[in-house]
Amino acid sequence: MDLKHADLVIKDVNVFNSYFKKFMHADVYIKDGKFLYIDQRSQNEVTAEKEIDGKGRYMIPGLIDIHMHIESSMVTPEAFCRYTARNGLTTIVSEPHEIANVCGKQGVEAMIRSGKKSPYDCFYAIPSNVPIMSRDFETSGGTISCRDMLELKEEENVICLGEVMNFREIIRDDSSEVAKFIGIIHDKEPNYPLEGHCPALVGSDLAAFLYLGIQSDHCVHDLEELKQRFENGMFIQLQDAMLNKEVIDYVCRNRLYEYFSFVTDDTLPDVLRNKGHLDAILRKAISLGMRAEDAIYCATYTPARRMNLSDRGVIAPGKVADFLLLDEVDTIRICSTYKKGRCIYDIERSGPDHDCYSLEGRFEETMRCRKLTEEDLKIHVPGKDRDVNVRTMKIDPSNNRTEEVFITMPVRNNELLWKESGAQLLLVIERHGRDGHIAIGFSCGSGIKKGACASSYSHDSHDLIVMGNDEADMILAANTIIDMQGGITAVLDGRITGKIALPIAGLLSRNSVEDTADAFETVRKAFLEQGYEHVNNIMNFTLLSLTCTPVLKLTDRAYLNTVTFEKPALYEEME
Amino acid sequence: MDLKHADLVIKDVNVFNSYFKKFMHADVYIKDGKFLYIDQRSQNEVTAEKEIDGKGRYMIPGLIDIHMHIESSMVTPEAFCRYTARNGLTTIVSEPHEIANVCGKQGVEAMIRSGKKSPYDCFYAIPSNVPIMSRDFETSGGTISCRDMLELKEEENVICLGEVMNFREIIRDDSSEVAKFIGIIHDKEPNYPLEGHCPALVGSDLAAFLYLGIQSDHCVHDLEELKQRFENGMFIQLQDAMLNKEVIDYVCRNRLYEYFSFVTDDTLPDVLRNKGHLDAILRKAISLGMRAEDAIYCATYTPARRMNLSDRGVIAPGKVADFLLLDEVDTIRICSTYKKGRCIYDIERSGPDHDCYSLEGRFEETMRCRKLTEEDLKIHVPGKDRDVNVRTMKIDPSNNRTEEVFITMPVRNNELLWKESGAQLLLVIERHGRDGHIAIGFSCGSGIKKGACASSYSHDSHDLIVMGNDEADMILAANTIIDMQGGITAVLDGRITGKIALPIAGLLSRNSVEDTADAFETVRKAFLEQGYEHVNNIMNFTLLSLTCTPVLKLTDRAYLNTVTFEKPALYEEME
Repeated sequence: MDLKHADLVIKDVNVFNSYFKKFMHADVYIKDGKFLYIDQRSQNEVTAEKEIDGKGRYMIPGLIDIHMHIESSMVTPEAFCRYTARNGLTTIVSEPHEIANVCGKQGVEAMIRSGKKSPYDCFYAIPSNVPIMSRDFETSGGTISCRDMLELKEEENVICLGEVMNFREIIRDDSSEVAKFIGIIHDKEPNYPLEGHCPALVGSDLAAFLYLGIQSDHCVHDLEELKQRFENGMFIQLQDAMLNKEVIDYVCRNRLYEYFSFVTDDTLPDVLRNKGHLDAILRKAISLGMRAEDAIYCATYTPARRMNLSDRGVIAPGKVADFLLLDEVDTIRICSTYKKGRCIYDIERSGPDHDCYSLEGRFEETMRCRKLTEEDLKIHVPGKDRDVNVRTMKIDPSNNRTEEVFITMPVRNNELLWKESGAQLLLVIERHGRDGHIAIGFSCGSGIKKGACASSYSHDSHDLIVMGNDEADMILAANTIIDMQGGITAVLDGRITGKIALPIAGLLSRNSVEDTADAFETVRKAFLEQGYEHVNNIMNFTLLSLTCTPVLKLTDRAYLNTVTFEKPALYEEME
Repeated sequence: MDLKHADLVIKDVNVFNSYFKKFMHADVYIKDGKFLYIDQRSQNEVTAEKEIDGKGRYMIPGLIDIHMHIESSMVTPEAFCRYTARNGLTTIVSEPHEIANVCGKQGVEAMIRSGKKSPYDCFYAIPSNVPIMSRDFETSGGTISCRDMLELKEEENVICLGEVMNFREIIRDDSSEVAKFIGIIHDKEPNYPLEGHCPALVGSDLAAFLYLGIQSDHCVHDLEELKQRFENGMFIQLQDAMLNKEVIDYVCRNRLYEYFSFVTDDTLPDVLRNKGHLDAILRKAISLGMRAEDAIYCATYTPARRMNLSDRGVIAPGKVADFLLLDEVDTIRICSTYKKGRCIYDIERSGPDHDCYSLEGRFEETMRCRKLTEEDLKIHVPGKDRDVNVRTMKIDPSNNRTEEVFITMPVRNNELLWKESGAQLLLVIERHGRDGHIAIGFSCGSGIKKGACASSYSHDSHDLIVMGNDEADMILAANTIIDMQGGITAVLDGRITGKIALPIAGLLSRNSVEDTADAFETVRKAFLEQGYEHVNNIMNFTLLSLTCTPVLKLTDRAYLNTVTFEKPALYEEME
C-alpha cells in the first residue's frame, strides 16, 4: 500500500481539530475512505488522484446521533437516512422499540435491513423494554425476550442496549427480561453500552440504577437532577427539550464536554423538514451561548466515544472520512456531506425526494381490532343517579408530564355524563388482535377542545388512542385509522380535518420525508385549530399511554400511576 | 439483590470526582467490590455491614499504568505487584517483550500466570516486535509470530497490542508479522488498542503510521514532535523523561487531559524502591505546575478509557472499587490502597518482603553461549600497518540516543590497537544457543572509563553485552554472568565491583523488589565509580543494542544504523 498517494485531496479547508477544539487550516488527504494525512504545514509530501478546492470552507466531522428513534419521523430507515444526509448526519444509533412493540424482533430486523440501504452508517440499539410493562398493565403486539436481545446483539450494526425504561422496577427486582440480559452481558462485556431512561430518579435510587451497569440518560430533567447524573458519572444525552440557558451555562462552566452529547430522541416529520435534525440542536446550543467548537465536539467525538466507535467522530489520520463542509460555523450551514470520503449530499445538486419505500416482510395490516361503535363510548356506572369524582389526566401545555385531577360528573341512568364537564373522553383500544379491550379515561387541560383525534402511533404499545369531545367524531377518527391500517387523524363536525396514513406497522409512512411531512402538517394544523394547545401537540397526544413517564397514564388495560404502579379507578364516590 | 444495603461504608472522605476534576466530601458505599453509592448529601438512605472512618482523608481512584514493562524492575510479576500496591497501583498493562525475546510465547504465558497471583489487576499487551529486526540484523532467543499474537490475544488478561516498534518498515511494507496481525485485527475490531513506538517520526510518515491503525506513542520527543502527535490524534503516554516545564505547560494550556496519560515504561529496581513508580511521576508532574486534580485524572480515568477499561478509573456507582486514601494530595502521600473494596496496602501494617519468587516453567539456564576468551577480544584487521578511522557510538550523558563518531586507531601486525584511543571496546555475544557470534564495536563519550561491565539484560534481543577498557576485566565481567546464568556485573582490576544475578531468562531476579534493589544498587554504584556518567547509566548501557532507537547500535550481528538500516563497517580506511 502506497501511503504517499491518496485518492482525494480537499485543498484549502479550515479543519476542525477535535483534540484542540479549534479550526486549523490544512489540505486533507483521503485514501480508501479514511483520512490519510492532514497537511497543516503545506509540506506536499503526498500526492492525490483527485483534487477538490475547499475554498476556505470549514470542515467538521460528520454528525453522530446516538439516541434517536427513526420511527418518530414516521418513515422507513432508508427514507430517513437518504433525507438526513442534508442535516449532516453520517452515523446514527436508532432504537426501534416502536416497531418492536408492534411486530417484535422481526420488525427490528426489517429496520436493520432497511438501514443497510442508507448512504451512511445506520446502527441500532437493542430494544430493551418491549413491552415496558407486563400484560397486566398494557398490551403490545410484539415482545422482546432476553433471548431475542442476545440474538439481536449478534446482528451486524447492532451496537448497544437501548434505553432501559423500567427503572423503578429494575432497582428493586431482577426478574425482567432486560435485567436477565444485563446480568448476562455486563460482567462479560463491561464496555457494552447500556442506555438508560430514568426521569426524576435521584439519590440512592439513581445510584442503584447506575450500579446495575446502565450508564446513560436522555430524559428531561431539572438542574438538580442533571447535576446528580453528571456527578455520578452518568453519560447525558441532551435533547432539544433540555436545551436552555441554565443547562448550557452549567455544562460549559464545568467543561463537561466528555460526558454529554446532543441527541434528537424523537423528531416528528414536519420538525425534521422545517427545522432540521441534530444540526438544529447544534444551532440551538450555539445560540444559547455554547462555543460552536464545543457544540460540534459534543455531536461528533463525544458520541463516537460513548458508543465505542473509535474509528470516527474526528478528522485525523486513520479515521473514517466522514465530514461536512460548512459555509458558516455558528449556523452549521452545510454545503456538503461526505461519508467514507464519498459525497452523499451537495446543496447545489440536491432535489426533493418523492420515492416510495417499504420494509421487506409483512408489516402492513397490523390494525387487528374491530371498528368502534357508539355503544363502545357509553360509560356504564352502576347505582343510583348521583355525582362522582372522575379521575382525569391533566395535560400541561409545556411538557409531557400529566397530573391527576378530579372532575365532578353526573351519573344518570347508570351512565356517566361527561360532555358538559370540560374534560375530553380518552379511549385506548387494544389493536394487536388479542382481546380488543377498550380502556376509558379522561383528559383535561391542554387536550383537543373541538371534535376528536386518534392515532395508531401511541407510545409504547401503539394501541389505538382516541380523544374527543364528540362521540361521532371520535368514531370517525378511530375508524378512519382502521381503514387506513394505521395513521393519525383529526375530525371536526363529521369531517376529517387532517390525516396521515401510516400503513407500515401503523407507525410508518410509505413516503419520503417531504411527502410525509406534508401529510403530517395537515394533522398538526387541525390539532391546533381544534384547540390542542401544546408545544408539541401530536407528540404529547401519542405519549398519553406511555407507562415510563409520570404520572397518570391510560393504557389499553386501564389507568396506571407510573410512579406507584397502582391502577386507580376511573371514578371515586363523593364523600 | 438489596441495593439499599452495602458491604462497607467509608465515612467522611474527600472524594475525587473525575467528571468535575475536583474533590467533594461524601460517604462512600461499596458492595460486591464495586462502588454502590457516593452519598454527598448525607442522605443516609443506605446501610452498610462494616464502617471505616475515613478521617477526612482524600480518596482517589487507584492508579493505572498502561505502558510499562515489569521486566525492567527485574522481578517476577507477582513480586512486582505485591510490592507496588504501596505505590497506589491497582491496574497495570505490562508488555513482556523482554522475556518474549528470550523465551518466546511460553515466556509471555508464564508472565501472565505469575500476574494472576497479583493482589491487583495485572493485564498484558501482546509483544508485537519480537525480535524487532530480522535475523540479518539481530538474534533473539524467542520470536512471536502473527499466529502467536492471535493466540495471545485470546488469553485472559491480554487487552492490547504492545508497542509496534518497526515504525519505519511498517509504513513502507506490509510483510512483518505485526503488520499481518494489524491487518487481521484492525478492521474487525477498530477499538482494539494498538500501541506504538515512533521516536522522531513526523509529517506524512507519522500520518502513515496512524493511518495503519496504531494509536499511541510513549517515546521521548521534543515539543514539535509532541505537538504533531496530539494534533493528529495520537494518544500520548508521558514517561518520566518527557516531564519538564515546557511539556507540562503545553498539555495544561491546551487542556489535553483526555489525550495523554502518565506511564512509567521502564523502572529499574532501585528507582522503584527509592523514588516510587507511577506515584513518583505524578509527584513530578504536580511539582512542575500541573494541578493535582488534572494529574490524578491522567493517571486514572484517561488511561482506563484508552484501554477500554470502562469499569474503573473513577469513583462512581457501578465502577470497580479500586481506590487510595491519601493524607496529602500534592505529594500523593498514600495511606492505603484498596482493590475491589479490599485493602491491599496499609502504611501502618506494611513490612519488607524477603520472599523468593519464580516463574512456573523452565525459564532458567538461558545463557547458551560459551565463555569468553582472550582470543575473542583480538580485533583482526588485515593489511599493512597503518591508521584507520574506527566507527564508534558516542554516548550522550543526558539521553539514550547515540551518535556516530570516528576515532583514529593504529593497526599493527594485523591487529587493531584501541587501548590508547579513549574509546571503550564493546562486544555483543549471541547467547541464545544459535551461533555464538560475537560482534565488535566501540563506544565513546559517557561509557565506563575504568574496568568493564556486562549484562545479559540488553534490549531487545538480550544478547550478552560487554563494555570495557581492559580485556581481562571484560572476560571476568562476561563470564561471571554466564556462571550466574544471567545478570549484570561491573569489574575493576580483576575484582568484581558490583553484580546482580538475574537467573530467570537472564532478565529477572528470584528475589523481592527490596532485595533486588539492594543488589542492583551495588552495580549502579560501581558503574558510577568507574566513570559511566549518565542520568541512567545501567539503563543506557542496556539500550546500546536496541534497534528501534537512533542512531548507531551494535547487535550480536554487527553495527546497525537504525534510521537507514545500513550495516556500516567497523572501520574505514583513511583517505
